[in-house]
Amino acid sequence: MIIVMAPWATAEHKQNILDQVGKMGLEAHLLEDNFRTIVAVMGEERPIVELPFESWPGVERVLPVLQPFLLASREYRGENSLVEVGSPVEGREPVVFGGPAIQVIAGPCAVEFEETTLKTAHLVKQAGCRLFRGGAFKPRTSPYSFQGLGADGLAILRRVRQETGLLIVTEVMDVHELDLVATTADLLQIGTRNMTNFNLLKALGGVKKPVLLKRGMSSTIKEFLMAAEYILSNGNPNVILCERGIRTFETYTRFNLDINAIPAIKHLSHLPIIVDPSHATGLWRLVGPVALAGIAAGADGVMVEVHPDPQNALSDGSQALKPERLPPLLEKIKGISAVLGRTMA
Amino acid sequence: MIIVMAPWATAEHKQNILDQVGKMGLEAHLLEDNFRTIVAVMGEERPIVELPFESWPGVERVLPVLQPFLLASREYRGENSLVEVGSPVEGREPVVFGGPAIQVIAGPCAVEFEETTLKTAHLVKQAGCRLFRGGAFKPRTSPYSFQGLGADGLAILRRVRQETGLLIVTEVMDVHELDLVATTADLLQIGTRNMTNFNLLKALGGVKKPVLLKRGMSSTIKEFLMAAEYILSNGNPNVILCERGIRTFETYTRFNLDINAIPAIKHLSHLPIIVDPSHATGLWRLVGPVALAGIAAGADGVMVEVHPDPQNALSDGSQALKPERLPPLLEKIKGISAVLGRTMA
Amino acid sequence: MIIVMAPWATAEHKQNILDQVGKMGLEAHLLEDNFRTIVAVMGEERPIVELPFESWPGVERVLPVLQPFLLASREYRGENSLVEVGSPVEGREPVVFGGPAIQVIAGPCAVEFEETTLKTAHLVKQAGCRLFRGGAFKPRTSPYSFQGLGADGLAILRRVRQETGLLIVTEVMDVHELDLVATTADLLQIGTRNMTNFNLLKALGGVKKPVLLKRGMSSTIKEFLMAAEYILSNGNPNVILCERGIRTFETYTRFNLDINAIPAIKHLSHLPIIVDPSHATGLWRLVGPVALAGIAAGADGVMVEVHPDPQNALSDGSQALKPERLPPLLEKIKGISAVLGRTMA
Amino acid sequence: MIIVMAPWATAEHKQNILDQVGKMGLEAHLLEDNFRTIVAVMGEERPIVELPFESWPGVERVLPVLQPFLLASREYRGENSLVEVGSPVEGREPVVFGGPAIQVIAGPCAVEFEETTLKTAHLVKQAGCRLFRGGAFKPRTSPYSFQGLGADGLAILRRVRQETGLLIVTEVMDVHELDLVATTADLLQIGTRNMTNFNLLKALGGVKKPVLLKRGMSSTIKEFLMAAEYILSNGNPNVILCERGIRTFETYTRFNLDINAIPAIKHLSHLPIIVDPSHATGLWRLVGPVALAGIAAGADGVMVEVHPDPQNALSDGSQALKPERLPPLLEKIKGISAVLGRTMA
Repeated sequence: MIIVMAPWATAEHKQNILDQVGKMGLEAHLLEDNFRTIVAVMGEERPIVELPFESWPGVERVLPVLQPFLLASREYRGENSLVEVGSPVEGREPVVFGGPAIQVIAGPCAVEFEETTLKTAHLVKQAGCRLFRGGAFKPRTSPYSFQGLGADGLAILRRVRQETGLLIVTEVMDVHELDLVATTADLLQIGTRNMTNFNLLKALGGVKKPVLLKRGMSSTIKEFLMAAEYILSNGNPNVILCERGIRTFETYTRFNLDINAIPAIKHLSHLPIIVDPSHATGLWRLVGPVALAGIAAGADGVMVEVHPDPQNALSDGSQALKPERLPPLLEKIKGISAVLGRTMA
Repeated sequence: MIIVMAPWATAEHKQNILDQVGKMGLEAHLLEDNFRTIVAVMGEERPIVELPFESWPGVERVLPVLQPFLLASREYRGENSLVEVGSPVEGREPVVFGGPAIQVIAGPCAVEFEETTLKTAHLVKQAGCRLFRGGAFKPRTSPYSFQGLGADGLAILRRVRQETGLLIVTEVMDVHELDLVATTADLLQIGTRNMTNFNLLKALGGVKKPVLLKRGMSSTIKEFLMAAEYILSNGNPNVILCERGIRTFETYTRFNLDINAIPAIKHLSHLPIIVDPSHATGLWRLVGPVALAGIAAGADGVMVEVHPDPQNALSDGSQALKPERLPPLLEKIKGISAVLGRTMA
Repeated sequence: MIIVMAPWATAEHKQNILDQVGKMGLEAHLLEDNFRTIVAVMGEERPIVELPFESWPGVERVLPVLQPFLLASREYRGENSLVEVGSPVEGREPVVFGGPAIQVIAGPCAVEFEETTLKTAHLVKQAGCRLFRGGAFKPRTSPYSFQGLGADGLAILRRVRQETGLLIVTEVMDVHELDLVATTADLLQIGTRNMTNFNLLKALGGVKKPVLLKRGMSSTIKEFLMAAEYILSNGNPNVILCERGIRTFETYTRFNLDINAIPAIKHLSHLPIIVDPSHATGLWRLVGPVALAGIAAGADGVMVEVHPDPQNALSDGSQALKPERLPPLLEKIKGISAVLGRTMA
Repeated sequence: MIIVMAPWATAEHKQNILDQVGKMGLEAHLLEDNFRTIVAVMGEERPIVELPFESWPGVERVLPVLQPFLLASREYRGENSLVEVGSPVEGREPVVFGGPAIQVIAGPCAVEFEETTLKTAHLVKQAGCRLFRGGAFKPRTSPYSFQGLGADGLAILRRVRQETGLLIVTEVMDVHELDLVATTADLLQIGTRNMTNFNLLKALGGVKKPVLLKRGMSSTIKEFLMAAEYILSNGNPNVILCERGIRTFETYTRFNLDINAIPAIKHLSHLPIIVDPSHATGLWRLVGPVALAGIAAGADGVMVEVHPDPQNALSDGSQALKPERLPPLLEKIKGISAVLGRTMA
């Protein structure tokens, strides 16, 4: 941490900083010349970096040096984390995120009717996917929109698993729904609006299931990794990140997939990361190209919305692919995976 | 709602839209010329505006015409809503937001120690404020930061009210803490990270206390008013909005107070709105000028962080004013209020 | 164009709109119900869409229906435009953007010294590229930074072409340098800071050379296509677009490549589009993955910065690849191109 | 400047940094512990801060310590700069920006017709303003919009000055129009799209007239002050800054006035700063409140668009005030100025 002193800071101000930092058990080096006075603070700065140094007399501003996250960092763990989803099935490779295999999750935004959900699931399976997405609890920006089937939706998802063997990815919105959703989910999804629901993140630390953590739509990469840190530091190492688009000034698409974030997070962290081109674009026409872009940039997987009848979907139909568009997309994902020396699971 | 057809849309596509819209009980007018084909949908469009028209064959995009919120709109209620906080005290004017009086809420970011909290409260009272803020439950981006005192903090806040008569503004983070926090709060604060916690918003609809709803840091004005709509449509009409800064590309300040939003929301909605210059800037030096700007733009009040010893604050000390800076700030707020034909409570 | 009337608009206000629109030679349809009054304006709205309808009495707001650009749109021209760069060379395929072949432009940010520039050019050529980039006139945010060699830089670029046969891509910053730069450039680059230099755009309409138009860092897709429209409508049809990253709240990377924009622009426009992962990321480590993502998303090419000695580059060395990293990157671009049914030129 | 080394940096990498920095004539201090290795670089870092240290072996990233601007900084000049516009007139106070007096500039977006321009000017004068704005050269995002009267517009502006004594503020878009515009302008306006037109900024350094520099719509405060630095370092100390709104995700208003920037820039720089609420909002209803907010936040003046007949304005009429709204607005500005211990000129 570097504390930059104001030009008008007095000797007393500087001594005060040195004393206070010393009391915190850290080492402080005063460096001065005609241009600036700085105090370089050495040692583990994470516990103190959010203290209000800018309100100390004579301080201009503070530059953190260490990344604020630790367990999520590459420095803490050099090799890629492998996160396994579901129980191993005899004779089949386990579903692992973060290894050489690209994983594809597909399914409708929300679970609506049992029959169409099962039909979609069979199509998703035939296309070669091993994970099925579908929301039972839905965060909706309008109180007048369809709010999800809740527990009934979970029952439908369990039937999907039973009938098809697909693993279930579904969202949990609230600490107090966690036990309920965990009975059904093989992979617990945390939505973009809950990335900073710190109570929920802490609770996920105590769960045995892996977590799919979506990036907050206005969260920086650092904040995204800090949210993962909450889960990791509370005891659950099985976190898969999901880039799902950030909010910018552009209005043609609903969000902007931050493609830079894929290699950036691969550099900063050992955690697996996938992309969600459906929410990142909001327009089904763009889903395929953006999915391929994610894989090409190094993502470990992709999650796409598929609906057999998008124009009658109760939630986000405009961004859903028709099932017949899935196989050619997977074919291309397979091709790009091969170019990068990877496989498609 | 205007449905814009793609240039290649067929007669069948157009007829399909007309039929479907008709089935929804709305009226559809087809308008065509050499430049475009549009379907103007008349009637109450709110229940259908989120349907996936973009996935219907031949549709290019959809332009909503009505604002998505209703109860929060000026069209629904022309005059300003008046929201009263606390019980009326004999011989004193009630604390009302949305009327001619400007209200000032002051206090520390987090409740830390009983003694300093009480000391701060007495200074806040002497300066002329009638509302005290302080967080007992704190959302923190780092799992390594101070997380708030919880129930013990609430007890301190009750003592503040008892000793000083100040009304208590404190945050609730979770549906399941709502009853607990409501025992203490005169005004329930919803933080920026919970503006899209829809379960919590719904639950607030059933509460008898008024709600101070902070704008999500990346929420549009429309989404902000939709969050208020959740509370209103679930039965609680007492919502005060709070503009607390949005996230932009600028990094010198933590956020950017959206000053345009004050008159814009006054135009669109009847709800009271205040500003939070402490979170909007993150730097105590900027708090005073930005508070004054908020009042000048037409806000109904201001919420500022005050701490007797910012450099030792456990949370957000860099943005806290020292108590001695409060009276001259209030003096200026009073002056500007008078220029605008308002008073300071 | 849809004119949305305020709820309090009078019959006179409505009649006024109908009259005024009629005088403009357009047709106006009044549609009214309990929820809103709108005037649907039919006909060619582009010449009037920027008129200040919001200041007309009784008007709430205006929703444009037609895209503001015409010549740049897919509606105007359905098939992809092919833009040829350089003169045809006997026995070689011409360098065409927008066809099946992916084009790669490589070279240093700025032309610095003749010897290193030539050395880089030879390496770029050996790697298989046919276009060389290098700036002689440089826009720099600091007056204390290296400002480019100007005319001397152009001379070096001409020598590059002579010695290697590579086509030259170089920036023009000002109308009055246009003739000078055009003597050297095979492809005239317009930088992000000049995308709204409308005098320059108009002048480019009169030039015989093709133009590489970079997106303004805070320009929407619409504004980007409007900038192209300036060039097209002034007589030059040979415009290649370049997505080079937009400005967002994220600070880990310099900009954010808008990957959604690639398929979005392919949908909206017939013009070729390439990506610039060097400026979009600012970090050489991310350049390769983001280049591949651009191709996977459907871009027609990529422009990458290459420098033989990045740590001594006078401009933007942190985002430059070392020449030895170019061939393996091109190998992967070729692989992905093949997956998409394209070739690498 | 702090150079943060990667965890895997070798002794050789560190020595290399120390050597290289030494060769640049700066002092380098190596500081190491279990958590990080940093090199603190002391001395004048501005000439080297843009060098590509991130491409040096073993370097993770670089944190600048000094602000990149010097002449524009408060450290360089402690007291406020006073910028005088126009020649002193006997018996009248000079028009000075940056002193106690608040200055108001008013007039139409574009100069359209001589008669209406003169009429507007007389109304502006009667309201008490001493500066008149009006664009002769107009940057327009659409090639199909009114592009300004050019030299004829300048002639009208000269007539305004002659008839009314108002000082003329008008935009220059291009280096090569500078001499022409300078014959007419008392204050040369640089628009938001030209804040990074570095050739133009350099040329303004050699001009005797003061400059009104608008902030780029996506420029940070630092970049804004760097643009001022270009003018200052090329010899012209008379720069007035203008905050005119930044681009964010919000779409209800055209831009978002960055109100935080007013006190922030007052802290960082000695230059005067004014606000432009017309462009910052795009909606005339919001102009008054946002103008007052700017003054309350500490701005030295305000520039508002006024048009006698906004609905027939050829440019930006939706954001123009009718002249009769000007006097009550000025009355309130005067009131707020008095609260802050200032006067209205």
